[in-house]
Amino acid sequence: MERNIRRMAEFFAAGPCRLRPHVKAHKTPEIARRQLAAGSCTGLTCATVSEAEIAAEICRDILIANEPVGPGKCDRVAALATRIDMTVAVDSVAGLDEVAAAARRAGATVGVLVDLNVGQARCGVAPGGDTVSLARRAASTSGVVLRGLMGYEGHLVGLADRAERDARTRRAMADLVRTAAMLRASGLPCDVVSAGGTGTYDISGRIEGITEIQAGSYVLMDSEYGRLDVPFEQALWALGTVISRPEPTRCVADCGHKSLTKDHGHPAVRDPAGAAVVALNDEHATIALPPHARVQVGDRIYLRPSHVDPTINLHDVLYALDGDRVVDVWPIAARGYPEHRRSG
Amino acid sequence: MERNIRRMAEFFAAGPCRLRPHVKAHKTPEIARRQLAAGSCTGLTCATVSEAEIAAEICRDILIANEPVGPGKCDRVAALATRIDMTVAVDSVAGLDEVAAAARRAGATVGVLVDLNVGQARCGVAPGGDTVSLARRAASTSGVVLRGLMGYEGHLVGLADRAERDARTRRAMADLVRTAAMLRASGLPCDVVSAGGTGTYDISGRIEGITEIQAGSYVLMDSEYGRLDVPFEQALWALGTVISRPEPTRCVADCGHKSLTKDHGHPAVRDPAGAAVVALNDEHATIALPPHARVQVGDRIYLRPSHVDPTINLHDVLYALDGDRVVDVWPIAARGYPEHRRSG
Repeated sequence: MERNIRRMAEFFAAGPCRLRPHVKAHKTPEIARRQLAAGSCTGLTCATVSEAEIAAEICRDILIANEPVGPGKCDRVAALATRIDMTVAVDSVAGLDEVAAAARRAGATVGVLVDLNVGQARCGVAPGGDTVSLARRAASTSGVVLRGLMGYEGHLVGLADRAERDARTRRAMADLVRTAAMLRASGLPCDVVSAGGTGTYDISGRIEGITEIQAGSYVLMDSEYGRLDVPFEQALWALGTVISRPEPTRCVADCGHKSLTKDHGHPAVRDPAGAAVVALNDEHATIALPPHARVQVGDRIYLRPSHVDPTINLHDVLYALDGDRVVDVWPIAARGYPEHRRSG
Repeated sequence: MERNIRRMAEFFAAGPCRLRPHVKAHKTPEIARRQLAAGSCTGLTCATVSEAEIAAEICRDILIANEPVGPGKCDRVAALATRIDMTVAVDSVAGLDEVAAAARRAGATVGVLVDLNVGQARCGVAPGGDTVSLARRAASTSGVVLRGLMGYEGHLVGLADRAERDARTRRAMADLVRTAAMLRASGLPCDVVSAGGTGTYDISGRIEGITEIQAGSYVLMDSEYGRLDVPFEQALWALGTVISRPEPTRCVADCGHKSLTKDHGHPAVRDPAGAAVVALNDEHATIALPPHARVQVGDRIYLRPSHVDPTINLHDVLYALDGDRVVDVWPIAARGYPEHRRSG
């Protein structure tokens, strides 16, 4: 993990594009603290208001790269904005107006980025004129300040083929950079153009006009990103115990998809070589073993998560290792819905 | 939920088979309390030691329908057994010996059921002679007391075709009942023959020789079990907020697979009619809308989970509704790894 943090910080050290590490991938203040300490960062990225409330304890510049909607969320964003620099994404007049109203109630100013759909077909305004029109409204609405644009190429970050990933990311980012130029040509501010992820940090992060990259998974990695040609090492493992060895070529460990999600496929088995998860139930990993594998009931077994973000979200603490030695226990403080835990 | 609890209790009221509701499906003491209060129960079923530690606060007869292995887990089971009736599954000599050693260290007695593989091909001893041999060892090991057998037909509980589910469940349960007879013929005790789930409760629960059913999902239900012909109603919903309405036929809600898992497929949308989740990312549900749907940014949207157990495991509280009114907030106390939360 320390090497991953250092490599990413070094990549962005020369600028002009900087890193805004995404908290959603680890939800762990101790990791975010180390990412910020490594340098090259503009601040932190969060996906939820809960994450931002936790991250605000260690960082004074936070982007929620998502559209907060609903009076509860917007009031919490506005409350944070009375203490630190808060920026959120907007992609609708209704969303913009709600953030602005909450900010005015709190006597705060919330920064906004207009969220562009750069091809993911999830949230986001179409690049071009619609974006300029929403940006103009943001620039003239009290309670918010227009800071620029955001566009997440989430449909491209996992493409295994480097040439395809590179070419398609350049086209997506061209939409974003061109729309940023339209904003400036219309006299609107556009200091921030935020994009990118672990699979595209070295593509989007070197395109002129992109000012910051929201990568998160690089810090702990998973088997999905491990298929790509990125210089980051697997740093996260789930440690299970073999609870059953019913047949020579089968064992069962006590970690199912309540411990590691399978939305990106089954976790990988570190050893013995040739072992593979063949079924992942709520509390069980059924593992096919190679012939003559020496695996016994009680053995510990390391599994590599296929998707870091939702896997982290299942756990309350991380055990920090130096080699094989546990040196610390880090609370995953932004897991789940901390506002409920605090009130409960 | 109240109707589901009542219907299941009524089914088992006549006996001789009883219900041992599975806590893993809801992890919520307030729900378990209501299940026990409705009657027809032998006690509670848990999947993990953590769940048992929480359930022990409200119930004095708990089965961990799973093999606890490792000194930490077995010592915690033994500690519980000094206070309440604890039974666990075993399927190996190593596992049996470890539970027994922990029990002796604690000065406790832990009940054991030999776990049979009735076709699921996960944990479990093969029916027949292997089972008798492990049962004999259990009967002669101090620290444990042999209570009988368990066999979970988990590969059959979700079969949509009633005739196939019925026929295959009867064959699987015949293995279990026949092995129970072999134990008794060998002079071994076999008071408990535990099996079943929500999809097979009315099949396995009416087979002579099965003494208790471990159903759990019936209490809250999900869309996977909703496909079956079981008389239980959907009682669990995730309430999201529409945060983006980028196109006439698309909206995005703020609940992704960190809120509802997709291991059994996408959640269903309650209304508008014809709306369907087309992508479920970490924090987003992208929903295809029928033409002319009147959905706006800020609207609340109800999603029906496809798999209750892992969905519950993502959350810290349940909001209890009477009609549309929130009447209580119930901690999901056995979510995650409570032993870490207590020490942290």
